[in-house]
Amino acid sequence: MFQVNENYLKLPGSYLFSNIGKKVAAYKAANPSKEVISLGIGDVTQPLVPAIIEALHKAVDEQAVAETFRGYAPDLGYEFLRNTIAENDYKKRGCDISADEIFVSDGAKSDSGNIQEIFAQNNKIAVCDPVYPVYVDTNVMAGRTGTYNPTTEQWSDVIYMPCTADNGFAPELPKGKTPDVIYLCFPNNPTGSTVTKAQLQEWVDYANKNGSVIIYDAAYEAYISEDNVPHSIYECEGARTCAIELRSFSKNAGFTGVRLGFTVIPKELKSGDVTLHSLWARRHGTKFNGAPYIIQRAGEAVYSDAGKAQLKEQVGYYKENAKIIKEGLAGAGYTVYGGVNAPYIWLKTPDQMTSWEFFDFLLEKGNIVGTPGSGFGPSGEGYFRLTAFGTHENTKKAIERIKAL
Amino acid sequence: MFQVNENYLKLPGSYLFSNIGKKVAAYKAANPSKEVISLGIGDVTQPLVPAIIEALHKAVDEQAVAETFRGYAPDLGYEFLRNTIAENDYKKRGCDISADEIFVSDGAKSDSGNIQEIFAQNNKIAVCDPVYPVYVDTNVMAGRTGTYNPTTEQWSDVIYMPCTADNGFAPELPKGKTPDVIYLCFPNNPTGSTVTKAQLQEWVDYANKNGSVIIYDAAYEAYISEDNVPHSIYECEGARTCAIELRSFSKNAGFTGVRLGFTVIPKELKSGDVTLHSLWARRHGTKFNGAPYIIQRAGEAVYSDAGKAQLKEQVGYYKENAKIIKEGLAGAGYTVYGGVNAPYIWLKTPDQMTSWEFFDFLLEKGNIVGTPGSGFGPSGEGYFRLTAFGTHENTKKAIERIKAL
Repeated sequence: MFQVNENYLKLPGSYLFSNIGKKVAAYKAANPSKEVISLGIGDVTQPLVPAIIEALHKAVDEQAVAETFRGYAPDLGYEFLRNTIAENDYKKRGCDISADEIFVSDGAKSDSGNIQEIFAQNNKIAVCDPVYPVYVDTNVMAGRTGTYNPTTEQWSDVIYMPCTADNGFAPELPKGKTPDVIYLCFPNNPTGSTVTKAQLQEWVDYANKNGSVIIYDAAYEAYISEDNVPHSIYECEGARTCAIELRSFSKNAGFTGVRLGFTVIPKELKSGDVTLHSLWARRHGTKFNGAPYIIQRAGEAVYSDAGKAQLKEQVGYYKENAKIIKEGLAGAGYTVYGGVNAPYIWLKTPDQMTSWEFFDFLLEKGNIVGTPGSGFGPSGEGYFRLTAFGTHENTKKAIERIKAL
Repeated sequence: MFQVNENYLKLPGSYLFSNIGKKVAAYKAANPSKEVISLGIGDVTQPLVPAIIEALHKAVDEQAVAETFRGYAPDLGYEFLRNTIAENDYKKRGCDISADEIFVSDGAKSDSGNIQEIFAQNNKIAVCDPVYPVYVDTNVMAGRTGTYNPTTEQWSDVIYMPCTADNGFAPELPKGKTPDVIYLCFPNNPTGSTVTKAQLQEWVDYANKNGSVIIYDAAYEAYISEDNVPHSIYECEGARTCAIELRSFSKNAGFTGVRLGFTVIPKELKSGDVTLHSLWARRHGTKFNGAPYIIQRAGEAVYSDAGKAQLKEQVGYYKENAKIIKEGLAGAGYTVYGGVNAPYIWLKTPDQMTSWEFFDFLLEKGNIVGTPGSGFGPSGEGYFRLTAFGTHENTKKAIERIKAL
């Protein structure tokens, strides 16, 4: 008799955003006349820019003609895209990353979920608290996290690094057990915080000294405004021997529904003689068959002159929203974090409300959807995440509503 | 110090098609004047049909406008696509499968590799021999297959079901150990063989009796020509309590570079109270973020009247190639199987050559690339796979070259 993967059954409740979706759907069904504004899930609202649309049409036309038709893509992604990424995201920032260290994928969510597979089951992970749920949940599914304590909402074998107002939402180097795999995300989801290059260098040095791997999620790097904030972990010295970087096109190019991302694994990153690059290549070759050709051409257009100019404007649009939210809420007396180098605004709930109480309050009284901070981990309790991905109109309206509550 | 997933290190050598690719690249580099024809990897050559191109352009245009822009897709796939699949692939064939039992993905390769994750690690798998390498390799990566014996080329904890000329390349029900998870693929890759509905019913009955799950890979169903060959395992009585079905758009619609597939898990398929549907939904929700909107619209167009007519012609084109190969080789004295209900032709190598000897012979003397049968398992030794996915012109030319050898 077959049996199921019992680790799946350990996962408490459902995925955060599914839960929110259900609550919102129920509210809308019961209140069909209410206009609900979502500043909750980090989904973009602006259409794809003309340079990307043009590249998509062109690639579609190529697929219509035998001479230019493309079937299976190369395992790691098309060279035209990997070369462009290497040039623009790395070489231009002084980072030593070559095209064949870049693995093109269908998005950073898949990569951030799958990357744990190449590590031993007894490896110990460290995550920020609060944290994007996928890092922990996928390690739970792999049986790497021990037992769950519903009171503390923590797993026995996970090292949690609290990120609170006290430490500026920047995790401190682990003082007790040494983690094998450290998940870091800057600019951070959900807190919108960042670290300086000097701070990140400390992590790289720590990882190299202790034989840890850093999985660096840089999905929101396009939102960085300040000069001393690193766009890539490879700006730090020694990162090639300890860091994997995850990148996304979702938020810098509006690709949430287009699906494209990439993972960088430098060839120096090794355990004994085994490179993590070779393991991830094997995974890609065995369990994945490449991102669609036409989507990879859209990714290439992100780096064209026209694409860059148009996307600077698009990201600017969302950054303006972040400013509206941050300044509006601060003006209304809220304590607000993030929003300067990130599309996320992290606010302290008023009147000692729990995160979910504030969620319900905001949904019912203001018809606004946000994300409860506690959904990202116990240190997120009492906080709430708003995103800058709405329209100007809705964002302004939402802030006016919150001010009037 | 981090450690790697040691199961990955157990995998012998590289992935079959990567190896072939390297050999062919080396040959071409050394012989730049030779015109090499590939009937090897199962990649299609015909461009996307007009109905699909039209749907792609339309969807791209929708992504250019805020009012019709789509971000994150629903976890299981868009309803427009799932409803169309349920109607056309299942209801019209008398199969009781509802839209919410269909999970849209980026392709059957990903699904066939990932599906093992929802089963317990000590579950025992059974595979045909020869077999599509992904089923076994992904179970190796999960640590489910025991130790590898390089002499027999078999894993200690895998149940192999030999498919040879003696049993018409149809596996026999396991007589020894009872498998928990049984991988079946019909029409078969690599042998091109099929089973009748009555034969498949025996497998469904066996699985229900023994508490096994059948993972039924029906990626090539569009190539079925004969009436008594089932297109879906759900044509068999009782399949809803024992079978998962994997489907692909790669070979019926030319989507190898477009990337779209789906997996069906009926809600009755349970271990105790736990449905496999709920586990796969959790996996989709946590490690995947949907297939691109524009690609899902392309998938929908596969089922339009125009799409169906155009694809019948496209599949007919490849079927004609299969006939050319099969009849041509038979006429030249080769012993040939498959090719009637499948795009694969499975031939006995001449003169006692091993599969790889014949590969080298064909590449060097005929400049033709095929796939060594032994790459699919020990019972494939002495066989060779040719595919019908070339152009008519190249296919005819290749057969003339083989005849002349």
